[in-house]
Amino acid sequence: SSSRLDHLDKSGTVFAEMTTLANTHKAINLGQGFPTLPVPSFIRQAASDAVANECMGHQYTRSEGNPRLVNVLSKFYADKIGRVLNPLTEIITTVGATEAIYTSMQALVSPGDEVILMQPFYDSYPAAIELSGGKPVVVNLAPTRTPAESSADWKLDINELRRAVTKKTKAIFINNPHNPVGKVWTREELLEVGQVAQEFDLVVISDEVYETLVFSDSPEKMVKFACLPGMFERTITLGSIGKMFGVTGWKIGWCLGPADLIRSCWMIHQFNTFAVVTPLQEAAAASLEKAIETTYFADTVKTYQTHRDHLVSVLARNGLKPTIPHGGYFVMADTTGLKLPKSLTTTTSTRRDYRACHFMTTEIGVTAIPPSAFYERKVGAGGDVPGRHARFAFCKGLDLIDGAGERLDKYF
Amino acid sequence: SSSRLDHLDKSGTVFAEMTTLANTHKAINLGQGFPTLPVPSFIRQAASDAVANECMGHQYTRSEGNPRLVNVLSKFYADKIGRVLNPLTEIITTVGATEAIYTSMQALVSPGDEVILMQPFYDSYPAAIELSGGKPVVVNLAPTRTPAESSADWKLDINELRRAVTKKTKAIFINNPHNPVGKVWTREELLEVGQVAQEFDLVVISDEVYETLVFSDSPEKMVKFACLPGMFERTITLGSIGKMFGVTGWKIGWCLGPADLIRSCWMIHQFNTFAVVTPLQEAAAASLEKAIETTYFADTVKTYQTHRDHLVSVLARNGLKPTIPHGGYFVMADTTGLKLPKSLTTTTSTRRDYRACHFMTTEIGVTAIPPSAFYERKVGAGGDVPGRHARFAFCKGLDLIDGAGERLDKYF
Ligand SMILES: CSCCC(=O)C(=O)O
Ligand SMILES: CSCCC(=O)C(=O)O
Repeated sequence: SSSRLDHLDKSGTVFAEMTTLANTHKAINLGQGFPTLPVPSFIRQAASDAVANECMGHQYTRSEGNPRLVNVLSKFYADKIGRVLNPLTEIITTVGATEAIYTSMQALVSPGDEVILMQPFYDSYPAAIELSGGKPVVVNLAPTRTPAESSADWKLDINELRRAVTKKTKAIFINNPHNPVGKVWTREELLEVGQVAQEFDLVVISDEVYETLVFSDSPEKMVKFACLPGMFERTITLGSIGKMFGVTGWKIGWCLGPADLIRSCWMIHQFNTFAVVTPLQEAAAASLEKAIETTYFADTVKTYQTHRDHLVSVLARNGLKPTIPHGGYFVMADTTGLKLPKSLTTTTSTRRDYRACHFMTTEIGVTAIPPSAFYERKVGAGGDVPGRHARFAFCKGLDLIDGAGERLDKYF
Repeated sequence: SSSRLDHLDKSGTVFAEMTTLANTHKAINLGQGFPTLPVPSFIRQAASDAVANECMGHQYTRSEGNPRLVNVLSKFYADKIGRVLNPLTEIITTVGATEAIYTSMQALVSPGDEVILMQPFYDSYPAAIELSGGKPVVVNLAPTRTPAESSADWKLDINELRRAVTKKTKAIFINNPHNPVGKVWTREELLEVGQVAQEFDLVVISDEVYETLVFSDSPEKMVKFACLPGMFERTITLGSIGKMFGVTGWKIGWCLGPADLIRSCWMIHQFNTFAVVTPLQEAAAASLEKAIETTYFADTVKTYQTHRDHLVSVLARNGLKPTIPHGGYFVMADTTGLKLPKSLTTTTSTRRDYRACHFMTTEIGVTAIPPSAFYERKVGAGGDVPGRHARFAFCKGLDLIDGAGERLDKYF
């Protein structure tokens, strides 16, 4: 097989590992970030209308994206970004944000180029960089106190970012709201990152898949990177229908940005997947048209905030100190209080967080994701931060969250 | 943007070009290979049942493929390949055959490796090879008489194939039934290719997306490459729900083969697209379960054969001598009889087939695909074969095929 596979971890993604382990041990799965909430009926209705089409609704749509979907995305973003995106040249749809991440790296990075990541990072970023022949260069998004009280306590040292730039640096990834931390970046923080990008002429990949899930107690508003002064021209913004409508299995995402960068992404896309699923793009368009006219997004934020609060209280009362997240699906919790046995039956990993997450799954019946998966693989990456934490998802039914609470109460 | 884009034609795929041109000129589009036939109701019903699911049916499925779909694929192929595929290790689903082509090249090819193609070839093969850092090496599948009477007259010179192998050769693509020629390869021809693969230890990528569309007057049975003696271990077979059920917009395909090769493909897939659309994989599984129990495949072959015969007669009576295809969606027709003006308004191409296809679209109102798109870009590739031909699709309603006939009759 190709030498490019040598860069990848042979065991596959942590999400598959932990979901499989959860299923085997009948644990409550608060690991992988897929919602277990019912899909609203207007969204299911849109899907049902789309597949009822007798013919052309089942054939290839436009390779760059279903026309109705790119149109409504342009409308949705008009005041958020402060400009009307050209739906034909400034947006392409992709097979989830995963293809958007992968494709943007293939489009931008030449072998030997460097791309800067902030750790903890979503695990497909470094893989996508390495598969493009690039080199991930890592800086830290770290808690400024122990344990962090909220996601706002996790900060980037802008000088560390600046020092990480070399002549080979091509792009920076930023994730807002951030997975796994839940941080909603301040405008000032984003401006600092933007200044570095401008100074060294870098592209910014702004992964904003959780943009519609910012909670009411967030000290910061969601600021889209592309709307900062001068930033549109150098930013590729990534989004996701899966996260927006809680339908991760639809596998519909997008890249938006200036026409030249988006065209480069499309050059890869056309020969990678050619086009995205037609009927569900049509359904996504209809759903977004409806959502814009209704209180769907506000209602969804309220629901998720309730779920977040349940999870936070479950963790807090069991001594697993939670970092309160201001956006997204996840809570980072400090598991220092958990005593682990010398040996475990399901893993030989020596990393404390892997051992903790395996132990919780098999002994307590609750599954979380070990954050080491979001850090460089080299020993000591991120200091003691990944080892101390576990990532819990609250995009799950209250019965599951409360059920996990009962299991934790019983154990502790 | 990345240096890897330098290898790609800036103008994008010929399918988008010709479909756009057809739409602009209200031409009857017999170009791009998407069916315009109604989707059978059992398939639409399966889709409708799948999207009616209230929750988990809309979330990520297994990254390697929806369990129900890989199970029924294993069953479907059991007697065709002469072995029961392990559904968990010997099959992955992909975003159409396009992702399967792309992913298999990323998984197999290291920079500098060579991959052999037979021209005419499906246009994404060389792109996928170049995007993996590999070098396409081209041999000819050429008509042995002019004009060819049937697709069986198009032959590969096995010595040309053998001479094309170097120490850097990694794999060979074969397409059976063949797009655009319609050839169904004989067992003897396939055995010869297999012998070269074995002798030089090459992987064979056998693109069999049209496997269920072999016509009753085909002199050859469809032989799956993987069922030839000794070939399973070195063959990745590609398939497509889009072609099997006439739903190209569902974007569901697969790679099947020995576990080690399939695992390599999955290593790329997990970070490229992660997983394929959940509800339509479920619907595809249900449709295939039904189709196996009914006469769906036999009925579909009959329908397509009728459409083929209409198209063949439309072309023949207008002097556009058709190569009668034995499988697939397409007819190669000899357009030598068409007189072209010196200059055209919609293209500046100097290739005769591009000029002919533009002329037919704008002046006659019938769109076909210029076969140069399936040949090396260097001048003279394929001799006069691509220039003389146009590829017409018959996966279109009889009203469209007959309507195209009327326009051609009127013109000639
Ligand atoms: C692609 S599976 C991972 C889902 C996810 O976004 C997460 O759990 O972080
Ligand atoms: C991916 S668009 C091309 C469709 C097709 O297979 C063809 O027309 O050959």
